[in-house]
Amino acid sequence: MKDTSKNKNWKHQLHEVIYEADTRAGKTFDLIILIIILASIVLVMLESVSYINDKYASLFNILEWIITIVFTIEYFLRIIAINKPRKYIFSFYGIIDLLSTIPKYLSILFVGTHALVALRALRLLRIFRILKLARFIGESNSLVKALKASRAKISVFLFAVLIVAIILGTVMYLVEGPEHGFNSIPRSVYWCIVTLTTVGYGDISPETPLGQFIASIVMVLGYGIIAVPTGIVSAEYTQQIKKNPINLNTQHCSNCLESNHLDNAKFCHKCGHTLFND
Amino acid sequence: MKDTSKNKNWKHQLHEVIYEADTRAGKTFDLIILIIILASIVLVMLESVSYINDKYASLFNILEWIITIVFTIEYFLRIIAINKPRKYIFSFYGIIDLLSTIPKYLSILFVGTHALVALRALRLLRIFRILKLARFIGESNSLVKALKASRAKISVFLFAVLIVAIILGTVMYLVEGPEHGFNSIPRSVYWCIVTLTTVGYGDISPETPLGQFIASIVMVLGYGIIAVPTGIVSAEYTQQIKKNPINLNTQHCSNCLESNHLDNAKFCHKCGHTLFND
Amino acid sequence: MKDTSKNKNWKHQLHEVIYEADTRAGKTFDLIILIIILASIVLVMLESVSYINDKYASLFNILEWIITIVFTIEYFLRIIAINKPRKYIFSFYGIIDLLSTIPKYLSILFVGTHALVALRALRLLRIFRILKLARFIGESNSLVKALKASRAKISVFLFAVLIVAIILGTVMYLVEGPEHGFNSIPRSVYWCIVTLTTVGYGDISPETPLGQFIASIVMVLGYGIIAVPTGIVSAEYTQQIKKNPINLNTQHCSNCLESNHLDNAKFCHKCGHTLFND
Amino acid sequence: MKDTSKNKNWKHQLHEVIYEADTRAGKTFDLIILIIILASIVLVMLESVSYINDKYASLFNILEWIITIVFTIEYFLRIIAINKPRKYIFSFYGIIDLLSTIPKYLSILFVGTHALVALRALRLLRIFRILKLARFIGESNSLVKALKASRAKISVFLFAVLIVAIILGTVMYLVEGPEHGFNSIPRSVYWCIVTLTTVGYGDISPETPLGQFIASIVMVLGYGIIAVPTGIVSAEYTQQIKKNPINLNTQHCSNCLESNHLDNAKFCHKCGHTLFND
Repeated sequence: MKDTSKNKNWKHQLHEVIYEADTRAGKTFDLIILIIILASIVLVMLESVSYINDKYASLFNILEWIITIVFTIEYFLRIIAINKPRKYIFSFYGIIDLLSTIPKYLSILFVGTHALVALRALRLLRIFRILKLARFIGESNSLVKALKASRAKISVFLFAVLIVAIILGTVMYLVEGPEHGFNSIPRSVYWCIVTLTTVGYGDISPETPLGQFIASIVMVLGYGIIAVPTGIVSAEYTQQIKKNPINLNTQHCSNCLESNHLDNAKFCHKCGHTLFND
Repeated sequence: MKDTSKNKNWKHQLHEVIYEADTRAGKTFDLIILIIILASIVLVMLESVSYINDKYASLFNILEWIITIVFTIEYFLRIIAINKPRKYIFSFYGIIDLLSTIPKYLSILFVGTHALVALRALRLLRIFRILKLARFIGESNSLVKALKASRAKISVFLFAVLIVAIILGTVMYLVEGPEHGFNSIPRSVYWCIVTLTTVGYGDISPETPLGQFIASIVMVLGYGIIAVPTGIVSAEYTQQIKKNPINLNTQHCSNCLESNHLDNAKFCHKCGHTLFND
Repeated sequence: MKDTSKNKNWKHQLHEVIYEADTRAGKTFDLIILIIILASIVLVMLESVSYINDKYASLFNILEWIITIVFTIEYFLRIIAINKPRKYIFSFYGIIDLLSTIPKYLSILFVGTHALVALRALRLLRIFRILKLARFIGESNSLVKALKASRAKISVFLFAVLIVAIILGTVMYLVEGPEHGFNSIPRSVYWCIVTLTTVGYGDISPETPLGQFIASIVMVLGYGIIAVPTGIVSAEYTQQIKKNPINLNTQHCSNCLESNHLDNAKFCHKCGHTLFND
Repeated sequence: MKDTSKNKNWKHQLHEVIYEADTRAGKTFDLIILIIILASIVLVMLESVSYINDKYASLFNILEWIITIVFTIEYFLRIIAINKPRKYIFSFYGIIDLLSTIPKYLSILFVGTHALVALRALRLLRIFRILKLARFIGESNSLVKALKASRAKISVFLFAVLIVAIILGTVMYLVEGPEHGFNSIPRSVYWCIVTLTTVGYGDISPETPLGQFIASIVMVLGYGIIAVPTGIVSAEYTQQIKKNPINLNTQHCSNCLESNHLDNAKFCHKCGHTLFND
């Protein structure tokens, strides 16, 4: 029985280190993982640049394996440290962790799957978790409330934009036709989104006077309707600030690493240490 | 007389199903029509992609005919079900329904008119009616009020933008001339709208130093004046929210399909069922 | 003496018709001039399209002469009708009126000056005067007050943007160099404005990794700083609406043509006629 | 001892002239330096235009030397006039001043370093100091407070945008591949930033249907999320204006050059002279 309790205790401690960030060990673990993730992203980026990869291919391969093994160990530690492993394995981050580990193993068996290591970029999303960004600008924050209040209206807005893009894209397909690059309706709709959002690549652009006239309308439309989501967020956020003028910010206490300080706080509300604002 | 009353009753019921969405049958009818419209749009899109059409041309033709016949039946049902058929036939949606049905019939008589089936995309506008989006974000909503209050100011603004585009477009035609792609004033005005709205295709772009200088002014102008409509909508909407802080949203009651709930409602105000927010 | 008084009276009436819009004759005169200006703009546009001009060159020439003569008569009438002709001749609109009349006469003497008739587009600015747009959204309006209040801040902002464009443009000239299209500093500054304003023609675009990195910073900067003028106008306008919630709008009374009605007015405050809002 | 005091006095006066702008001499000095900086920028720009430089190369070289010597003298005067020269030499402006002076001297020793004179553009930043723009729109101003209050939130926002750009850039690299211009992950990330910020050069653009679909999502995302920073600045600034409705502006008294006047001030609060607003 003592053995089990000891085992549980050991498991509990591992859980603390891996999943929580309240202890010094937990923070160090998170920081190391964060650095390795960033290093792995840089590595994947450098590998994708052919003239750099040509020079250092073998070095990159070794580093890839080191990172893959570290990620594998981390993956299994996460499974061991949790009571219900399934909860982790099938969670959003669990799947991303798996996806960023297996491509390297697959590359031994199948040629050509190596490029999939780039999926590791998805692990960047973990930064949100490690930095607890969600908590920084979190529930207590007026901005998130404003964005939630705007969600329904912005969805309807984007839906309307999509319908406009489909209709005007189809009209442009009939007007311009395949000879000017509008060779299918999906491509015309793509052009219409490129124009409505004011991106304007210029890979497809209208050539006929009528097409250019319709395009002008699409542009002015796109230029004007940006005012709608912006207005919604502005107004909702103004409203939220008025309701709840207390805003927590993202500064850290250099002493105890406590965050969630008030915007005007000069001393850490936890340890009394001075807060430095750059 | 009884016969007439029965007939009327039958007509009345058909009207309920086709034009209203209060009964279960009416909702089902709307949903089926919505799905067929979406399917017909996807079909038109796939047909327009030549390499897909080459493979499945005959299948697409059969599906086209099925959808056309369904739309034809729906069109005649709508005429029968209403007391004053003219009101429907010459209404906005009546004309769109006709336009999205006849091209397929015309394609038997005249070669080359087949492309007009793409006009069917206009039927997407019916989605606004079926989903009653207008009601969801409707009269009671602050956003619509804000947009209506902004309308006159934004029209004057767009009118001023158009005049600026014509004047600066003409100036650029004189400065750059046909040898740099500004080969007519309408084309220069088109370029000016492309630039003012910050779309910037790059199909026409200034080459002379003076032209690039004027273009820079146009860009900064376009970049700056977007602040005007955005500011108008933001301010008007902030004003509307303050006046009438009650906002109805687009969520449905999963039990009775009632919409128009308050933003913070947790239970349906009609049947008392719990409302789920994702 | 009576003669002089009669002459004065005649001059006064002419002034009423040409410079004011309070009488029926004055309104008719303004409307006719507006139509002729619009017709002359369309004419200049059509002339600039070579394949249309090739067909109708002689017709266009006759119409040009008619419009030029009408404009000449109008110009002299304006000089006669005013007590201090110099005040008109050297005014903003006086110079524009002259500039839009003489190019046609010059084209007899000098070959190649014909293109300058396009300067006539400047007469479009008179629309603002004829439609009294300045009065519609005029002094009494919160928007104009908000824009005036924002002017100083937006000027400082644009000045800062220009300095950033010069510095980053110079840096890009050093980084990319003439071989990638950045062949002079002014051209690099032009590129920087194209990028900062998110227009992005793509006529010049960075090729080196370092150049693309700096360009990314420029883009994010340009994308972010648009928030500043927009925020200024939004906030100032919100402020103005709160101070003075009375807004006059641009609707006309269909009976007496009175404008400057309140936003919610249903009847003309002058003649009591119903106001129709579309 | 008297000598030292005299020396100190002389040094003090020099300091007043060079570093302060309170005396007439100080203002004149700042103005002359400002004009020379602007002249040197124009000179560097003209030199970079090859066809102008070919003509006037020797003239430009002489002017370059004059400006360089003036800048050198100014640099040493600044060192002499200050008590702790190190404070100036290693300050931000001290380093810029050095960087804008030495390239011309280096160009004698090393061929090819001449282009570095363009670094002189950095001296434009001194304009902010000379015009005391920081003071004009300075601490007392609501806008700066609003931007400071928004800083943390906008940083988190830009950080999130960067992560999205890296992830979607990587996905596009896998989808489109080197054959469509996405030849490395950094380049794909660059493309993603170009698209997210709605710049859209079109130097790289998706070719595959799936790539165009993902690109459409990136565009709509970029088009929509601009609402977030804009909303933040709008709301914070609205808040600041409400708290502190007193706004100082950038107008000068033409008599005593005093700035920091209230927005509605008609007379200088220092000397009573009329303030002219254009």
